[in-house]
Amino acid sequence: MSDDDKPGTPKDSHYARLRRAHRDRKGGGERPAAMPRPRPSKPPHEPIPPGQVRLYGLHTVRAALDNPKRRIARMAVTRNALARLELGEDHGLPFPVEMVEPRAIDRLVGGDAVHQGVVIDAFPLTARRLSDLGEASLLLVLDQVTDPHNVGAIMRSAVAFNVDAFITTGRHSPSESGVLAKAASGALELIDHIEVGNLADALGELHGAGFQTIGLDSEGTVELEAAFAEPRVALVLGAEGKGLRQKTRETVTTLARLDMPGAIRSLNVSNAAAVALYAARRHLAEG
Amino acid sequence: MSDDDKPGTPKDSHYARLRRAHRDRKGGGERPAAMPRPRPSKPPHEPIPPGQVRLYGLHTVRAALDNPKRRIARMAVTRNALARLELGEDHGLPFPVEMVEPRAIDRLVGGDAVHQGVVIDAFPLTARRLSDLGEASLLLVLDQVTDPHNVGAIMRSAVAFNVDAFITTGRHSPSESGVLAKAASGALELIDHIEVGNLADALGELHGAGFQTIGLDSEGTVELEAAFAEPRVALVLGAEGKGLRQKTRETVTTLARLDMPGAIRSLNVSNAAAVALYAARRHLAEG
Repeated sequence: MSDDDKPGTPKDSHYARLRRAHRDRKGGGERPAAMPRPRPSKPPHEPIPPGQVRLYGLHTVRAALDNPKRRIARMAVTRNALARLELGEDHGLPFPVEMVEPRAIDRLVGGDAVHQGVVIDAFPLTARRLSDLGEASLLLVLDQVTDPHNVGAIMRSAVAFNVDAFITTGRHSPSESGVLAKAASGALELIDHIEVGNLADALGELHGAGFQTIGLDSEGTVELEAAFAEPRVALVLGAEGKGLRQKTRETVTTLARLDMPGAIRSLNVSNAAAVALYAARRHLAEG
Repeated sequence: MSDDDKPGTPKDSHYARLRRAHRDRKGGGERPAAMPRPRPSKPPHEPIPPGQVRLYGLHTVRAALDNPKRRIARMAVTRNALARLELGEDHGLPFPVEMVEPRAIDRLVGGDAVHQGVVIDAFPLTARRLSDLGEASLLLVLDQVTDPHNVGAIMRSAVAFNVDAFITTGRHSPSESGVLAKAASGALELIDHIEVGNLADALGELHGAGFQTIGLDSEGTVELEAAFAEPRVALVLGAEGKGLRQKTRETVTTLARLDMPGAIRSLNVSNAAAVALYAARRHLAEG
């Protein structure tokens, strides 16, 4: 996934030619004009109580309300959003609910967050263990992918493609957050999430259970479509830019590549996950 | 694409049951505890000069430097980032370059932006016209998709899948921005972008040129794989939540759906675009 994250070679670039022409003409650097003066960065928003997560947005909060395993500490909501949550006149939720103005929520979650008038503080869900896998046939494994937008979008695709479990390492993985939950569009409440201590050990355990583990890597030896060989598949994806760790590369059954015909040779990690899941579902449907 | 964006029906939800039990027990609402008091939202960062765009990040700036069509007004860069751009000791760029500390760039682009120590103010690229299409066989059309993260990620996938042109409406489309360029990971400088005034007219023009236009819609009459019929294909995607406009639905050759086997029935729009492009490339390779 990393080819296009390296800056290109400057020698054949447009501006390299201009620079040469410039040096020939002027023989030296130019006095730069001043950029506009920066202002102080934004103040932190109100801290989230220790051990809790702050989730926002109608769909995210609706999904949390519908999840029996989700414990909610409190809610702040606008009159309009409360109506759109369809809780009825006497909402009687079993946790404190504060009616607020929209701007108060802007300030609780940060001005860039699309909160749609509702925010909750809640307790994180409990991750499951690898021994809980049962009859799973399709798993998605993330090797230290940390960007919450990407992880959230991948969770949504995993639920949409009916992935049986979503496996991450306990360390170097994003914890639940408002950004992740929003990108997951409800999937955070629906996914079977398994946390493992050591990824290589976990992959070994999956091999013992009959899984083919397929790591996506731009230097994979086979094309993804040709890689599928077993009725139980675990797809393994690495972080944007960094890709799979060396130990992970050495441990997976198969290193497969997604060949891109265009000038950019890799997809965004969540897009790569969606394409790989699509290909895997086609393989499993044929098997 | 919109099924999962509606809040679920509350009557069969976990908290609906709790609420009923709560009403039975207590007969009324509970006094809510106060949420933490919000603080003022972040101040706006330094305004971008009118008619220009502010782009940041090593890869994005590198791609802009390499694009002969991109005019740059000025750059602010850290010593470290300048070294990583590999411009050489006498960088001699034909626009003003200011050496700054990393924090100054934090404050220019906002604290959440991953700028990697470099920012430029530049002039937007000129969009092309529909009459420039030539021998194109695969097009991607966006019907009022505005989220810059999604549009940027879609641009990157479009370049990776070697899409011949990327078509948007002039209005209700995101303009170039730092967020879009960063998500596009260099694709902003590589894509052939065509802006049209009226999308239905443009689709009619594509039909005249022999293109099959395929709109992605959760209520499409055929599955995407079964929809491909012609050697020239234009995929049409609508915005997250809203989907295609009625007029667009009525105008495309085929309305196709991506069937999702899981509890969430739709993909994020950039993920849907990647899967659709993957399926289209397979079709065109077979044709």
